[in-house]
Amino acid sequence: MSSPESISRSAPSTVSATDLVSALVTIETSGAGFVDLTSEIAKFVSEAGAREGAVTLFIRHTSASLTIQENADPTVLGDLTTALARMAPENAGWRHDTEGPDDMPAHIKTMLTASSLHIPVLKGELALGTWQAIYLIEHRSRPHRREVVLQFAGTTR
Amino acid sequence: MSSPESISRSAPSTVSATDLVSALVTIETSGAGFVDLTSEIAKFVSEAGAREGAVTLFIRHTSASLTIQENADPTVLGDLTTALARMAPENAGWRHDTEGPDDMPAHIKTMLTASSLHIPVLKGELALGTWQAIYLIEHRSRPHRREVVLQFAGTTR
Amino acid sequence: MSSPESISRSAPSTVSATDLVSALVTIETSGAGFVDLTSEIAKFVSEAGAREGAVTLFIRHTSASLTIQENADPTVLGDLTTALARMAPENAGWRHDTEGPDDMPAHIKTMLTASSLHIPVLKGELALGTWQAIYLIEHRSRPHRREVVLQFAGTTR
Repeated sequence: MSSPESISRSAPSTVSATDLVSALVTIETSGAGFVDLTSEIAKFVSEAGAREGAVTLFIRHTSASLTIQENADPTVLGDLTTALARMAPENAGWRHDTEGPDDMPAHIKTMLTASSLHIPVLKGELALGTWQAIYLIEHRSRPHRREVVLQFAGTTR
Repeated sequence: MSSPESISRSAPSTVSATDLVSALVTIETSGAGFVDLTSEIAKFVSEAGAREGAVTLFIRHTSASLTIQENADPTVLGDLTTALARMAPENAGWRHDTEGPDDMPAHIKTMLTASSLHIPVLKGELALGTWQAIYLIEHRSRPHRREVVLQFAGTTR
Repeated sequence: MSSPESISRSAPSTVSATDLVSALVTIETSGAGFVDLTSEIAKFVSEAGAREGAVTLFIRHTSASLTIQENADPTVLGDLTTALARMAPENAGWRHDTEGPDDMPAHIKTMLTASSLHIPVLKGELALGTWQAIYLIEHRSRPHRREVVLQFAGTTR
């Protein structure tokens, strides 16, 4: 374990937070790949009038998943796809193969990434870092209709 | 990155959400494998009188973890076990081996899956997809006693 | 799937939870490795006056991540580093290499671990298990300045 040079922390800031805003996003994917949901989530935060709190995303599927990753160089997404394919290859002796060779790898890739994401909202904005985007990852080869539940909990204006 | 055919989103729905309900689930596992917690969580949601909000699960261990996966074909769970064993094999030169050959792989499998899960509750029901179940994964060979903290935050009746 | 010997659950306990406390932690890492944030998070919980609810952590980066892992034997952290390096090796044909050979592996390791963590707070204390610690994992070789957003939602005194 490396020692950090330093850790600093801002003073805690408290508000009364009693609002819960929910919505459902439906995404028609065009086959395996990353779908950037960031602007859609930002619109939800804006329409909800969210001020302080957090947004959560929950995907209602086991062969597609969620991740937060770099938004700048598209080769990053290609390399992430390669990395997942190496960890969960097709035709690797899986017993569950009735839905096609891409199905069991899709379940494994879902297990290794996220079913839900949590992003703070501060002063009405998603507290994402400069290089972060919110992605749905379609792990199946063919297009699928995917549902993601959005919830904001906190204060609204 | 693939482009989605379309993204649509329902109108945001807001409620005042001020209730927090907590409980502790204790699971005596019978050794390595998946334990389906879905009906137990559904009972908690029902007994809590949960209406709108989310349930979170938190596992208090580093050699067992949580995941949301397919509930239909049991060979999926077998293949997920195989996939984790390939990524975190026993006797692969691990330095931490005093607690047995299954211990360090159990920590790695925990790191690759989830310590906490978040599932929305809408109209009093877990917003799981048709094929989703909530599993505890016991990564150790022998039976263990495992604790999972449940919390519902939102509105109750 | 193994059958559990038994599952038991405590009675649900409900409180009115309307407080949201936020803070930002800045960590200057000293290069690749694990940084234990547990005592810093415990201080935040104490200063926030948190009683019942949950703390969430969100890391604003895509080449460093979060995990909950064993706090006892430091060789566990070394073996976790080895496991991640085997799954995301340097010089493995990645297309994204302009920021150095450690950059694309850092993105993959981030995808495989967590961008956010959720830890319940019960009776004013983090509900961590005996062997659990909260770690930031720096995946880049060189020191970096990292930001983690902390939020407690629940009841405060």
